[in-house]
Amino acid sequence: MSFYIQSVEIGGPRPFYLLGPCSLECESFVWEMARSIKSIAEKMDVPLIFKASYDKANRTSVTSFRGPGVKEGCRILAEIGKELNLPIVTDVHTAQEAEIAAEYVDLLQIPAFLCRQTDLLEACAKSGRAVNIKKGQFLAPWDTVNIAEKMRAFGCDRFMMCERGTTFGYNNLVVDMRSLYWMKQEGFPVVFDATHAVQRPGGLGGTTGGDSELAPVLASAAMATGSVDGVFMEVHKDPSKALSDGPNQIPLHLLEGVLKRLQAIHQAVRSC
Amino acid sequence: MSFYIQSVEIGGPRPFYLLGPCSLECESFVWEMARSIKSIAEKMDVPLIFKASYDKANRTSVTSFRGPGVKEGCRILAEIGKELNLPIVTDVHTAQEAEIAAEYVDLLQIPAFLCRQTDLLEACAKSGRAVNIKKGQFLAPWDTVNIAEKMRAFGCDRFMMCERGTTFGYNNLVVDMRSLYWMKQEGFPVVFDATHAVQRPGGLGGTTGGDSELAPVLASAAMATGSVDGVFMEVHKDPSKALSDGPNQIPLHLLEGVLKRLQAIHQAVRSC
Amino acid sequence: MSFYIQSVEIGGPRPFYLLGPCSLECESFVWEMARSIKSIAEKMDVPLIFKASYDKANRTSVTSFRGPGVKEGCRILAEIGKELNLPIVTDVHTAQEAEIAAEYVDLLQIPAFLCRQTDLLEACAKSGRAVNIKKGQFLAPWDTVNIAEKMRAFGCDRFMMCERGTTFGYNNLVVDMRSLYWMKQEGFPVVFDATHAVQRPGGLGGTTGGDSELAPVLASAAMATGSVDGVFMEVHKDPSKALSDGPNQIPLHLLEGVLKRLQAIHQAVRSC
Amino acid sequence: MSFYIQSVEIGGPRPFYLLGPCSLECESFVWEMARSIKSIAEKMDVPLIFKASYDKANRTSVTSFRGPGVKEGCRILAEIGKELNLPIVTDVHTAQEAEIAAEYVDLLQIPAFLCRQTDLLEACAKSGRAVNIKKGQFLAPWDTVNIAEKMRAFGCDRFMMCERGTTFGYNNLVVDMRSLYWMKQEGFPVVFDATHAVQRPGGLGGTTGGDSELAPVLASAAMATGSVDGVFMEVHKDPSKALSDGPNQIPLHLLEGVLKRLQAIHQAVRSC
Repeated sequence: MSFYIQSVEIGGPRPFYLLGPCSLECESFVWEMARSIKSIAEKMDVPLIFKASYDKANRTSVTSFRGPGVKEGCRILAEIGKELNLPIVTDVHTAQEAEIAAEYVDLLQIPAFLCRQTDLLEACAKSGRAVNIKKGQFLAPWDTVNIAEKMRAFGCDRFMMCERGTTFGYNNLVVDMRSLYWMKQEGFPVVFDATHAVQRPGGLGGTTGGDSELAPVLASAAMATGSVDGVFMEVHKDPSKALSDGPNQIPLHLLEGVLKRLQAIHQAVRSC
Repeated sequence: MSFYIQSVEIGGPRPFYLLGPCSLECESFVWEMARSIKSIAEKMDVPLIFKASYDKANRTSVTSFRGPGVKEGCRILAEIGKELNLPIVTDVHTAQEAEIAAEYVDLLQIPAFLCRQTDLLEACAKSGRAVNIKKGQFLAPWDTVNIAEKMRAFGCDRFMMCERGTTFGYNNLVVDMRSLYWMKQEGFPVVFDATHAVQRPGGLGGTTGGDSELAPVLASAAMATGSVDGVFMEVHKDPSKALSDGPNQIPLHLLEGVLKRLQAIHQAVRSC
Repeated sequence: MSFYIQSVEIGGPRPFYLLGPCSLECESFVWEMARSIKSIAEKMDVPLIFKASYDKANRTSVTSFRGPGVKEGCRILAEIGKELNLPIVTDVHTAQEAEIAAEYVDLLQIPAFLCRQTDLLEACAKSGRAVNIKKGQFLAPWDTVNIAEKMRAFGCDRFMMCERGTTFGYNNLVVDMRSLYWMKQEGFPVVFDATHAVQRPGGLGGTTGGDSELAPVLASAAMATGSVDGVFMEVHKDPSKALSDGPNQIPLHLLEGVLKRLQAIHQAVRSC
Repeated sequence: MSFYIQSVEIGGPRPFYLLGPCSLECESFVWEMARSIKSIAEKMDVPLIFKASYDKANRTSVTSFRGPGVKEGCRILAEIGKELNLPIVTDVHTAQEAEIAAEYVDLLQIPAFLCRQTDLLEACAKSGRAVNIKKGQFLAPWDTVNIAEKMRAFGCDRFMMCERGTTFGYNNLVVDMRSLYWMKQEGFPVVFDATHAVQRPGGLGGTTGGDSELAPVLASAAMATGSVDGVFMEVHKDPSKALSDGPNQIPLHLLEGVLKRLQAIHQAVRSC
């Protein structure tokens, strides 16, 4: 039931990592981040898919930074992927964006709020690209089965489901680690998004807050369940200056240590 | 701070009602429902906005009924509105749909999952039509202030916020009645959607369940808070045969009784 | 299925009210509150059960005020009841307290945290007094059926269940108004505790916060469901000086207006 | 800040385990379980505290098995502890029980529903024994600070806090793994109760359900957070025949494998 995105096996024995900055703040910044992250992933010998977003389509405030847009963003990402020999993942928000992005990137990502929009699922499924579907904050783990059936009905088997937390009271999310186990039982590859799982939605008034020191804690816990195929984490060379999701991104200089711990946990779990 | 949609005052002393079947099952059916509901609203002397959806864009299953689509659906709704002299409300799911629907209907409704999609808010705000924004199941009541600011930034003052329940564990929603009070304090008109508030999302496996006998109970409670300007309820002549949301719609023959009770509660609250 | 506590019918056509200050701050204070509340209840012609607590057994902090204890507290309450011809309700926390309190007061109240302690339920059930059981913040509405079965197994039919909110994320409660409907369907009288339902547990660091202006809002909503037999509200002549639960108690000078509104809503609902 | 219970260090570098059957079903059964578990703990070289309950004081139904009571139960447990050279932990439900149990056992455990009952905390704190306080299903992680302050005010420093899940909608609990991190930051030893965290409270009508295959999954996740000092798990030689909590207990024959995995994860986390 595993499949490949370039040389990265999805759902195989080795965990893969979706890493990159939240957004395409500027071209030179993304290149720098991609080179740095690639070098750490190679040192740690872990499969990497590089991530960045061309548009933050549901920012809390209308004055927030959004990004360069789908065409320009995907062009930059495709160049990075080609030059550095890395598969690329990016978010898409409409059927049209899915069609455009599919020409450039290897893995389309469906944002959590949009995971039940049939037209978007259909466009991604029919694009020929692999798809990472974030489970909505309003869905039960077993509700992802209906989404999987939509994907298959539209002819796509190369998809994975991503846990990123569930609504828990107001301005808070909780990660139910049982969710990873239940989704894995359904037979599709499972990703854990450690960055967005520690968000405090709307928690800072006009922006969304979070606890970046908790992202590696939850990633460790998720890896220890033995049900996770991939881990998604946003990484920034200076989170305090990030144009979006600053409070949740992992500082670049900590990435190597985080990966080392996750790999060690994975080893421990698989060997028992 | 009140405004008018045709002759219906939004945010004034009298409560208004958004009533109609969940979806445009077929042309003759919607005409029949519109005439029946209009006649009951006139008998009860309550302001009515007629509602039906041309597309159910996030059905649980890909084989579920969706509807006639935006152009054909809005054409039908516009004819009904003109002939019966009723303002019309319908859901829109993308910026393009908002532009098309705005040519035909009086009130655009933004679905809860999409309430933070900036492009959709912008298209609705700039359409010149009034907008009813459903609060996402993942939002705190006070988070609607950020949405309101987006609307105003895009030049729209004729909007209202709609409570339809918050994620509460798995496959369940809860209506926090304090939410109506808090949203009303923010200064925009507040609508309570009694139909979707009693949904059990994903609760019936491949479809979404609900408890239609609870819709009038929650509508009554909401009206008694004194913070509600309008009530949204889906009505069907035979909910058991509805092509969507059957378990939550109010049977047509009960509508008059429900309206009578809501009006009596409104009277009681306003007089004390 | 209704029963009487002195002349107050529980579960009959007229709503009854459990009113009084949170705690027995001092003897003269409770007398004053009892006289004032009785006079308002008589003016509004509503059945009254007077409430005060002799011990706050689960205060957030160990330095918080607790009260005069079971014997001295019940002695004072019994004198008030006899002199003013009022039935009395008070909280009990152990089987021994239940036995002592039952000698003095008419209605024993089981706190929410303790609603599943079998020994306490048994002692209350066997005391011969009526019992008001607060539904735990951790229970589903239908779980009260198991508690009711325990009461009946211990020989007690004169009990009622009280809704006071459910845990909703951290430091917050939500009142699911459907709960009142579901509990009423089970056949026992249902009380709504408006004061504790608006608590913010632990919300103010070392004490418990709340929103007293929301207590009448939720009481109104609850009354409008048509499933409520009684309403519990704590009343204080100066909530800002209360020794416990200050943020949630209704100021005495507002009580008449609140009762007037609740009675009007009850009228409206019953007449439709 | 660590302390000792006999030779078991609480809050030191090595994780300890609280293991045993849910209840004292009969004397020979508990002896058998204690010998078996001790033998596995010795083989795995992990510190063990043996657990069993003499009374299940809040069973869902009045006809459920409760146990031999505090005196007889503690006498049996004390003999086991002496003979097998094991520290013993058991639940206490009232101040009186705490005083009696403290004569026999090494570690008193405060049930989650009762974690805010000041008199019980006081009795445990003053007993001279160490205390394990289960965090209520209705408490935020940071609310345990108030409980810790009560314990210290009553003169007790030898206590630990235990996570066992938070109310999440109806008939469900969720473990927020961030809770372990936050509680550990407060400076007291932290225990994770894997057995009760997977309960489905009231989920099976008249009894409480659960998912025992999830207990090791959550224990693994908790251990991987790096914030857990001890793990509590109920173990039964045949969970399907257990007189209480059957659906959640770990079968004895799986215990060695579970401990091996937890130790391996602990190694992995501490070495990175």
